[in-house]
Amino acid sequence: MKGVPAPTVKRLVLYYHYLEELIRNEREQIISSVELGKGVGVSAAQVRKDLSYFGSLGCKGVGYQVDILRKQLGKIIGFNQRWPVVLIGAGNLGRALVYYEKFRELGLEIVEIFDCDLNKIGNKVATIPVRSNKEMEELVRQKGIKIAVIAVPAEEAQQVAELLVRAGIQAIWNFAPVHLKLRKDIVVIAEDLSSGIGCLIFNLKNII
Amino acid sequence: MKGVPAPTVKRLVLYYHYLEELIRNEREQIISSVELGKGVGVSAAQVRKDLSYFGSLGCKGVGYQVDILRKQLGKIIGFNQRWPVVLIGAGNLGRALVYYEKFRELGLEIVEIFDCDLNKIGNKVATIPVRSNKEMEELVRQKGIKIAVIAVPAEEAQQVAELLVRAGIQAIWNFAPVHLKLRKDIVVIAEDLSSGIGCLIFNLKNII
Repeated sequence: MKGVPAPTVKRLVLYYHYLEELIRNEREQIISSVELGKGVGVSAAQVRKDLSYFGSLGCKGVGYQVDILRKQLGKIIGFNQRWPVVLIGAGNLGRALVYYEKFRELGLEIVEIFDCDLNKIGNKVATIPVRSNKEMEELVRQKGIKIAVIAVPAEEAQQVAELLVRAGIQAIWNFAPVHLKLRKDIVVIAEDLSSGIGCLIFNLKNII
Repeated sequence: MKGVPAPTVKRLVLYYHYLEELIRNEREQIISSVELGKGVGVSAAQVRKDLSYFGSLGCKGVGYQVDILRKQLGKIIGFNQRWPVVLIGAGNLGRALVYYEKFRELGLEIVEIFDCDLNKIGNKVATIPVRSNKEMEELVRQKGIKIAVIAVPAEEAQQVAELLVRAGIQAIWNFAPVHLKLRKDIVVIAEDLSSGIGCLIFNLKNII
């Protein structure tokens, strides 16, 4: 499943959530690519193209079975597994992420929290103790954790990321507003709030 | 500038940041659509199509002037103006947003914070006092604020949003993991962290 473009993966997640909503509201059991597209704001052709990467998921002329497609997408994306995660940074953002319910729902479980602030080390966030960054490398390696969430200030992020990679981390979800330079085989997803700000302002400007 | 698709607006923000980075690092002064595309991970054709919505921004066969294009994009998006914003929710996420530097850099300034939690009302976040939700409607109307950021739990978000719209809010940046149902002319940007989680897991699955 290499070679699937990043925007397609993002849309798979949108399709997944829309199907979940349909199931929760006990709506349609069969959905066409037109309806699915409408539900998430893309064309039917786009839906068909995105799903075509994964073989034949629907039935031509009939549509997709809602519950089956949701399960297939969950499996394709990886939402059906449990992924232990380390969080670096126990500041406001880090703490917000610990309490973010969707996190666990989608299979990510924060199992360790690290920070370099002596005032935070030893405290708990939810039920998880905050440990010193100095313990990070050994614990990540020992537990074989593959995913890290970086929620430290911009100027600390690169150094933290390098340490994580050395410890065996293969995927980083980066909330620090800085571009991480790492080995090419490391997955880095940058959560960039500024695109939200941009869309907000652009659209507001065009109605007032 | 109506009719510009949302993905185009998101990419405009990416182009803007990439150009900013070039300027900060004193790199190229002229950039081709191929290079700009490479910098943000899209095709040259996509770059040209996105920019074509706004008339002739470059010079055929030569490229775009980096500093001029950045300025033009900033103006198109609206990053060149200052927008006062109210924040609802002074929990971990709300506080993280107050301290998020990019916010101010891009022109958004949080001027009021509201919460319904008596333990939070009266405290300050940075220099801004947390006020009671009960004061929200009057203050928003009185100050003529148009943008609100919602960082309250999912179950409170719809009610808060309706109150904000009644007070004159025209654009909402929603961090609550719930779909807001509002008048069609209200701009709602949903910040959905689950698409980041999806991309992270999907990509990790494909390397391990």
